[in-house]
Amino acid sequence: MQDQTEQTRERIEWVRKALAQGEDDCSLEALIAELHPADLAEIIDGLDEDAGVDFFGRIPPPLRAETLSEVDEEAWAGLLEGVDEQGIQALFGALELDDAADILAELSQDDAREILSRIEPEESREIAALMRYDEESAGGVMTTELVRVPARLTADEAIVALRHQGREVRDFHTIYVVDDSGNLLGTLGLQNLLVSDGEARVETIMSTDVVRVLPTVDQEEVARLFAKYNLVSIPVVDSDGRLLGRITVDDVIDIIEAETTEDIFRQSGVDEEEETFATPLEIFRSRAPWLLITLMTSGLGALVIAQFEDTIRRVAFIAVFMPVVAAMAGNTAVQATTVAVRRLALAKGHSGRPARSLLRELAAGFLIGGLISVLLGATAGVWQGSASAGLVVGGSMWAAMSLGATWGAAFPLLLDRLGFDPAVSSSVFLTTMTDMISFLLVLTSATYFLTRLL
Amino acid sequence: MQDQTEQTRERIEWVRKALAQGEDDCSLEALIAELHPADLAEIIDGLDEDAGVDFFGRIPPPLRAETLSEVDEEAWAGLLEGVDEQGIQALFGALELDDAADILAELSQDDAREILSRIEPEESREIAALMRYDEESAGGVMTTELVRVPARLTADEAIVALRHQGREVRDFHTIYVVDDSGNLLGTLGLQNLLVSDGEARVETIMSTDVVRVLPTVDQEEVARLFAKYNLVSIPVVDSDGRLLGRITVDDVIDIIEAETTEDIFRQSGVDEEEETFATPLEIFRSRAPWLLITLMTSGLGALVIAQFEDTIRRVAFIAVFMPVVAAMAGNTAVQATTVAVRRLALAKGHSGRPARSLLRELAAGFLIGGLISVLLGATAGVWQGSASAGLVVGGSMWAAMSLGATWGAAFPLLLDRLGFDPAVSSSVFLTTMTDMISFLLVLTSATYFLTRLL
Repeated sequence: MQDQTEQTRERIEWVRKALAQGEDDCSLEALIAELHPADLAEIIDGLDEDAGVDFFGRIPPPLRAETLSEVDEEAWAGLLEGVDEQGIQALFGALELDDAADILAELSQDDAREILSRIEPEESREIAALMRYDEESAGGVMTTELVRVPARLTADEAIVALRHQGREVRDFHTIYVVDDSGNLLGTLGLQNLLVSDGEARVETIMSTDVVRVLPTVDQEEVARLFAKYNLVSIPVVDSDGRLLGRITVDDVIDIIEAETTEDIFRQSGVDEEEETFATPLEIFRSRAPWLLITLMTSGLGALVIAQFEDTIRRVAFIAVFMPVVAAMAGNTAVQATTVAVRRLALAKGHSGRPARSLLRELAAGFLIGGLISVLLGATAGVWQGSASAGLVVGGSMWAAMSLGATWGAAFPLLLDRLGFDPAVSSSVFLTTMTDMISFLLVLTSATYFLTRLL
Repeated sequence: MQDQTEQTRERIEWVRKALAQGEDDCSLEALIAELHPADLAEIIDGLDEDAGVDFFGRIPPPLRAETLSEVDEEAWAGLLEGVDEQGIQALFGALELDDAADILAELSQDDAREILSRIEPEESREIAALMRYDEESAGGVMTTELVRVPARLTADEAIVALRHQGREVRDFHTIYVVDDSGNLLGTLGLQNLLVSDGEARVETIMSTDVVRVLPTVDQEEVARLFAKYNLVSIPVVDSDGRLLGRITVDDVIDIIEAETTEDIFRQSGVDEEEETFATPLEIFRSRAPWLLITLMTSGLGALVIAQFEDTIRRVAFIAVFMPVVAAMAGNTAVQATTVAVRRLALAKGHSGRPARSLLRELAAGFLIGGLISVLLGATAGVWQGSASAGLVVGGSMWAAMSLGATWGAAFPLLLDRLGFDPAVSSSVFLTTMTDMISFLLVLTSATYFLTRLL
């Protein structure tokens, strides 16, 4: 059997090549109809805007809505401009409500309002309601399409009810059980419904121990709940317990990926909103703030060095070792922080015995620092033909790495205690500190032993 | 309505406090029975080993299997040692087969074999078969517990069949349709089964366009397929198309989280296997290799500086600005790389117009570099009271940042072209290069203008 993903990849490549060469025959059309909307979206994301609009127009209408929801959000406005009024109605009729709300939120207010005025009033109202929630909250991620049944029905009656409701709802695995005022009483998995006695009342077979969220809860917390409790969907309720909507696991995977990208971008100081094809000026706006912070923090290290200009003039070789010591102390600290942050995440705020973990890191830093300091100190000593040079370089390296390890382990604990999020992204403040410590250690010890180094 | 997660957190805190204070009354037992296994696992992960074993013993037997599968894998061996033979049989009878295989894989071979000999032969065989797959492959993640029906059944007959099979299978949302030799023909969602005519044959209502994987596929690729196609489960088939098992979305969320941790750890040069409570010697083994690489790469920068000892001796103030220029060029490069890596990931190997994106980064680097170089150059000029000092520092900064941006954007494209994975974690080789370029630019320009700087 040929690997199916291999086959899909070949088909995508084939379509890409045909598009690039401007080939335009019916075999291309047939191939498009065979691809999954997610594959079609992948092709569009690789094209430039005009070619993307053109390609979107060739996708068979039944596949268009799902393809649209899968393409990169930067492309939405452009793709919709190429669709006529009738096409818009068909598209938004087929889109899931949460996807429709996400797409409209990316358009200009005027464009969004115009589209809302053209689609079915009830749907339009629901989409507008979804758009009022913060995009990164549970309310912003949920859809209002779900299957709900009254608690007093029997299992057989519930099956009839969901045969009616279920045709319009995609991917439901859970039925929500409500009372007459719409309050969520419990949930019923389809598998439980199927294996139950048909005469049993829904309220006797439903599960009442249901993890639920308010619409204001942050999407990251929603993702955490899915991961922790192995959920497939989660109901969203208002503060009175009334069922508002549900969030499904496919949205959660997208959330986790978006949050990871956000974290990586933040860590490098790139604005998370920076677009793939930003102009140089947009890039400037996105990245300059972080670089100015780097300028200030590295300036602090420079201030330290400036105090020792005279020492550097007299023992210039020390300038060769300064960046090495700073790099090693910095990396030691980042390693210790990475582990400490993970430990905090595992213990979920219950940090155990912080003193013990600090001592362990200090011991490890002392051990690794010892090995590397001997290597570097020997190099300095042999090069300069002076044991004192070796001792100054090796000794300050050892101290810098031991302090770096301890400081790196202590830093997230400190942030956590102060109520800040101890993310690894705080590493710039970490290395500012280790840079200053390193420069200070190397230069004060060189100044102190100055007469022996000359 | 009180937020439910708030309430859970309070309960967990209450249990933790009671345990820490050695309180031991029945209210604690009652509270334990009310918590979700994932919450119980969270409590165990926060305790030290002895207290964890003690607490595990107090969990009601029906909750133990799921709690065990949720605790951190480092704790498995310790917790199982505290369980008697009867308890082991009950535990492994209740565990899902993939979880059982994962747990046994963490024990010593002897312990695993002993446990396998004590549990039901059929289950034991299936677990042993799962253990043969690589832990991070589709085969290692899948479970063999699933619901399968022959294609020739009617919908009503299929419901009867799954009432029989379904009692032992947790969380199934999809029925797998097979032919008489066990080959996978298609899938049938429970929701489609429920809304179908009872007389319809399964083969006429099943979906045949099923994304499937071989057991040897890497778990990261499995996660990518779930994310791309919005899957809730995926069937695993052998090369003849025979159905072997299924992977469910809750495992995939765990995979994504594990891969993220792995990436973060790798990026800081911490071995991904480093345990939470590693001894200093284990920490040494996990982190020393990366620090030795850092030593070598930062040593290359030091070699550059060493060539200019004489310049530094004569214009020592230049040593103050070297680390600043290096830090700025390095961060500019890391920002450009982060964006380039994401662009590559979005385009999935279809890099579009690399030349255009390099030009855009060069322009942005030139723009941001210009602003920052004026700031830094002015500082240097005023401090040293010399326009030449300002020009040397500002000019080399500008060049270093422009080159850093271009090199940072080009680096992942180059790695990708050469067939390597262009992860952000390659940033150490990036900054080695920017350090060397920075030192070289600052020091050669200072040497060139030496007479004007004195």
